[in-house]
Amino acid sequence: MDRPFIHGDFLLQYDDARRLYHEHAAALPIVDYHCHLPPEPIAADARFETITEAWLYGDHYKWRAMRANGVDERFCTGDASDWEKFQKWAETVPCCLRNPLYHWTHLELARYFGVTELLDGASARPIYERCNAELAQPENSCRGLIRRANVVLVCTTDDPLSELEAHRRLAEDASFPVRVLPTWRPDRAMAVDDPAAFNEWVDRLAELTGMDIGDFETFLAALERRHQFFHENGCRLSDHGLEEPYAADYTAGEVAAAFARVRGGQTLDAAARRKLKSAMLYEFGRMDHARDWGQQFHFGALRNVNSRMMARLGRDAGFDTIGDFDHARPLARLLDRLEREDRLARTVLYNLNPADNYLFAAMIGNFQDGRTPGKIQFGSAWWFLDQHDGIELQLEALSQCGLLSRFIGMLTDSRSFLSYPRHEYFRRILCNMLGRDMERGLIPRDDALVGRLIRDVCYHNVVAWLGLDGQALAAADQGGPNWSA
Amino acid sequence: MDRPFIHGDFLLQYDDARRLYHEHAAALPIVDYHCHLPPEPIAADARFETITEAWLYGDHYKWRAMRANGVDERFCTGDASDWEKFQKWAETVPCCLRNPLYHWTHLELARYFGVTELLDGASARPIYERCNAELAQPENSCRGLIRRANVVLVCTTDDPLSELEAHRRLAEDASFPVRVLPTWRPDRAMAVDDPAAFNEWVDRLAELTGMDIGDFETFLAALERRHQFFHENGCRLSDHGLEEPYAADYTAGEVAAAFARVRGGQTLDAAARRKLKSAMLYEFGRMDHARDWGQQFHFGALRNVNSRMMARLGRDAGFDTIGDFDHARPLARLLDRLEREDRLARTVLYNLNPADNYLFAAMIGNFQDGRTPGKIQFGSAWWFLDQHDGIELQLEALSQCGLLSRFIGMLTDSRSFLSYPRHEYFRRILCNMLGRDMERGLIPRDDALVGRLIRDVCYHNVVAWLGLDGQALAAADQGGPNWSA
Amino acid sequence: MDRPFIHGDFLLQYDDARRLYHEHAAALPIVDYHCHLPPEPIAADARFETITEAWLYGDHYKWRAMRANGVDERFCTGDASDWEKFQKWAETVPCCLRNPLYHWTHLELARYFGVTELLDGASARPIYERCNAELAQPENSCRGLIRRANVVLVCTTDDPLSELEAHRRLAEDASFPVRVLPTWRPDRAMAVDDPAAFNEWVDRLAELTGMDIGDFETFLAALERRHQFFHENGCRLSDHGLEEPYAADYTAGEVAAAFARVRGGQTLDAAARRKLKSAMLYEFGRMDHARDWGQQFHFGALRNVNSRMMARLGRDAGFDTIGDFDHARPLARLLDRLEREDRLARTVLYNLNPADNYLFAAMIGNFQDGRTPGKIQFGSAWWFLDQHDGIELQLEALSQCGLLSRFIGMLTDSRSFLSYPRHEYFRRILCNMLGRDMERGLIPRDDALVGRLIRDVCYHNVVAWLGLDGQALAAADQGGPNWSA
Repeated sequence: MDRPFIHGDFLLQYDDARRLYHEHAAALPIVDYHCHLPPEPIAADARFETITEAWLYGDHYKWRAMRANGVDERFCTGDASDWEKFQKWAETVPCCLRNPLYHWTHLELARYFGVTELLDGASARPIYERCNAELAQPENSCRGLIRRANVVLVCTTDDPLSELEAHRRLAEDASFPVRVLPTWRPDRAMAVDDPAAFNEWVDRLAELTGMDIGDFETFLAALERRHQFFHENGCRLSDHGLEEPYAADYTAGEVAAAFARVRGGQTLDAAARRKLKSAMLYEFGRMDHARDWGQQFHFGALRNVNSRMMARLGRDAGFDTIGDFDHARPLARLLDRLEREDRLARTVLYNLNPADNYLFAAMIGNFQDGRTPGKIQFGSAWWFLDQHDGIELQLEALSQCGLLSRFIGMLTDSRSFLSYPRHEYFRRILCNMLGRDMERGLIPRDDALVGRLIRDVCYHNVVAWLGLDGQALAAADQGGPNWSA
Repeated sequence: MDRPFIHGDFLLQYDDARRLYHEHAAALPIVDYHCHLPPEPIAADARFETITEAWLYGDHYKWRAMRANGVDERFCTGDASDWEKFQKWAETVPCCLRNPLYHWTHLELARYFGVTELLDGASARPIYERCNAELAQPENSCRGLIRRANVVLVCTTDDPLSELEAHRRLAEDASFPVRVLPTWRPDRAMAVDDPAAFNEWVDRLAELTGMDIGDFETFLAALERRHQFFHENGCRLSDHGLEEPYAADYTAGEVAAAFARVRGGQTLDAAARRKLKSAMLYEFGRMDHARDWGQQFHFGALRNVNSRMMARLGRDAGFDTIGDFDHARPLARLLDRLEREDRLARTVLYNLNPADNYLFAAMIGNFQDGRTPGKIQFGSAWWFLDQHDGIELQLEALSQCGLLSRFIGMLTDSRSFLSYPRHEYFRRILCNMLGRDMERGLIPRDDALVGRLIRDVCYHNVVAWLGLDGQALAAADQGGPNWSA
Repeated sequence: MDRPFIHGDFLLQYDDARRLYHEHAAALPIVDYHCHLPPEPIAADARFETITEAWLYGDHYKWRAMRANGVDERFCTGDASDWEKFQKWAETVPCCLRNPLYHWTHLELARYFGVTELLDGASARPIYERCNAELAQPENSCRGLIRRANVVLVCTTDDPLSELEAHRRLAEDASFPVRVLPTWRPDRAMAVDDPAAFNEWVDRLAELTGMDIGDFETFLAALERRHQFFHENGCRLSDHGLEEPYAADYTAGEVAAAFARVRGGQTLDAAARRKLKSAMLYEFGRMDHARDWGQQFHFGALRNVNSRMMARLGRDAGFDTIGDFDHARPLARLLDRLEREDRLARTVLYNLNPADNYLFAAMIGNFQDGRTPGKIQFGSAWWFLDQHDGIELQLEALSQCGLLSRFIGMLTDSRSFLSYPRHEYFRRILCNMLGRDMERGLIPRDDALVGRLIRDVCYHNVVAWLGLDGQALAAADQGGPNWSA
């Protein structure tokens, strides 16, 4: 190999693509409007002792690959040493050829650590030591890693019960120019399938708000207070992890009765559960609209399908999968119900099954309001789709059925401080697609026209869509990332 | 840019593709066997005063793009002036990069008006004036626009109650060699979901036929008369816009009872409605077979999902979307029910969700009868799929599961007199695909073999499939389109 | 054409692809771990009198193409002469451009018979005669055809009632080094939809085992004996052809009652049928796990949808199609039910609707056990998908969501002794994809790394996965196929 695997023109297969990427995309700051980074380590500016800690402690993508490769659970989630885990991961990397992990791994090694050789069992030890040494440097603290990627905004994902202490500390800390805002994720407020867990959560909500939550109205009022609290702490986005849209017909009486039953510890039948969730989803949407937030819906994951591993490891351990739910009718009903009363907030719809790409890309067009450009968004390729093929498929469906130029672009959706190169990955794929289009004469070879689209999709659209102060955000922009390679 | 965006080899990326297109596809006449052109303006040979009238008055594709771009409804369907609407559309065009509207817009500007610069806010005024001036020319009347595209047959879409006056006038008008035939579209005859609207329609049917329609049999007999009337006026095709195939089991008694209930103004429950529609679909198929017509089924659209805009603007205003109905079983049952009694007419099956492409491509193979080549067709990419990506996906699925060589090819499905370049668009994509195959060695570099397939798909197959007099049609062929550019 | 359509670099569009294929894939032996070859002609080393016999007697792919081309049934399944049938097929071949039959036909003609010209109506006669003459040669007996393709293992598909006589004869025949093993396919043991046919089958099972099968437990015990008998005769794989996964909740009492009702000749309602099948599927999975077999599930075909032709020709005549069943939940439940009790055997999941590719590719990741690499497999593209586009789509989904490097690769799934070039076809597509990736910089240009993946996917993985003696298998390896061209 003449040049390293990860080089300056990685993924860029056309002259046009290379020019577009380097001139219009590479230096733009990152707005990470949806991720699962914990805010505490950012507030504390924590450091990692080993690359294993940063890479393998919570990354169920890697665990899945290791399990598929015949690696024992001890090296994934178990009590093996950090080195042993890294070694097993390194041995698995060559087996990940064509999987996004192969690209992400080498991109992260190159960008953060300047490692340009391929990771495998043989190169594991020197790479492990080099990464660990780099991680000991001050510029590779949690904040440092964020800064190096030229991130200007991080939106975390937070339970309504969170007191947002880390966010508040960060807001007062002038030494860190990156804004870290909470996102309202009321999944547990809808988790009525398990009355005991739900009631425990509602009891804590009651305690926090000082309200006696005996009925649905008080429940909503208590949530409304938390919603306001989140708003006061900078939150401008909600997010929902849902199997499918809930949009059943219901009456106030039915919902009141269902809530009372759950609150009394009883299990609801499927129909009552659906009615209650439908009411909740409507009310949550109403709150978001009232405070002019954006709302995000992540549809279509079937979670925790391996009950043995669920019992052993709990949630988010790599046993979630792509569902095949019916989306069209209920999704249309959910959006229509809010739109009919002019209560439809800016909305992002994410699907997990790529078979639904065109359905989602067409759906957003039914609820654009002719006021906010790109008000309803077909969300970026997500989870199993957040890779070369999946990103291209999402961009293609969006392009054909909607306006790519109004897309708010990429997010990480990650739990890892090392995953920011995924924005670079997305930008390269976007520019390669547009460069290929130019090469093929499918779009004009007009850099002003196409460059503007790129800059909008990579940065400007999301700033406008979020309704945040662009000037303030731009203050953290360093003019580009600060990479090792 | 050295050459204009729309040039002679637009979309043709291979030498083989260019040769195949120019030698085998470009000059062929167009058989537009399914569209929504109104017949009256053709009969009257009407003219357009402005490009806005021709482009924006009824085009919900453009309205959707404008709404997504934040353009107020006043400029889509409202009372803004023609110039204002055009201007807003022109400003939206650059935001449509990668959307089919970007291609269609520039293709239509180039072909009909010789405009080769890109449309945007800055170029809007001179282009508006130039187009309007061109539209004032006699060769750009409704008939002129059809003739310039080298169309030899137009099949409109007509309600069974239509008296087909325009069609009759056209049939007698020797000065216009293009045949304009009606298509039987009995959607309102199946619209039993709304008893009031249905009964109003049936009352008009009763009046028109002089029959007292009190039961299902008389209803069918009255429709049979209209079917015969359409036949006498040249109709050889039916078309159905359906969410999903109706193929429930039913008894004559159940159907009679359901019809009586609807006729009495009562609403049917879901099961009864399905039985009644299943009976209707079978009977309509039987009629089509009896007169040796072809029948078309457009499956899978979910219509009017935005109730606020439905109340304000009515149907066909850009608020329809892609559904995710279950098709396999009922579609197989519907076709089998007719086939079992040797009453299955030549049939075209169109799907709206590309996730169903392979399902549809495989389905047609189960009911080919070994007599009529390509008797059952997987219909051309339609509506949201009628674009570069969607056309390729449909052609690929059809190729892999069926015989591309027997495909009856493209139609416009359009309400616009300016949309005939979509046939050129399709032909370029087809030839590019075949040229790419040649380049890659996937098909022989044998122009006789491949050229024949192209000519068949673009013209000859549909003429044979429709069972029309090819000689008579060919009389209108001018040897190629008459374009400005 | 400078070179024949089928040439040494057929399908290989990149230098990297050509090198990878010729150096790493071409010479590897074939493990055909799932096909429908009849074992008797292998045991008897039968010969074909005509190419029609080998090609057209049982090939419903070709029949479907011929019917779609307007060829009368007499030439497909009827009483036309072998030459007439071949002639009609030859005339249909040019109409199959872009269909996999076009590639398969010419690949088989070139490889087995050295025919390099294109087959059509004009070339039919000389090609017919040449092929027939070749088939008369001893090296083109059933065994010869298998040997020429360098097959080392054939797994047939067998009913549990089979006495496996041909397999036993073959096991004792030292003159034929290729192993021919049975596969346990208990579809008829689950076919409770037709009580009469089911009971006839169970009666034969009772007779064969000498057991009085009056209840579900005895039924299972009898099957267990047959399972053991298959095991003793080398069987290490089961296979199931199912519309959808059966994973309903059931009690022992419900299942016992349902079985008794069927055994008594009564028809079950849908719920009872589903419970009984769910119990069966679980028990069959348990048996496979107990003997350390692999199990295969072919999901998603909708069979015999043309009832007129079913009545005339019976099953497997080309009237099966792609369904759109809901798979995610029941498939997860089926696998989880077995996994929960540590009774999940090595498993291959095949889907028929490519819309489910990502669902299947993600699903396998939930049940990898961290012990057997690639324990759960997303099966090779199958039936309607077993072609250029379908194979690429399956490889892409598997790559993005799982480990391509652990894939057990291609099988023929064929009834024809001439279909072994499909392995070559698959290997060329795989190598072309990887060569394209290299060319685009998506994987390292590292032949050791990528070559290993190719060799594993084409041969070594399946040998390891099957748990067979690789040394013994390799004994039949001749170092490459013995082709005419």
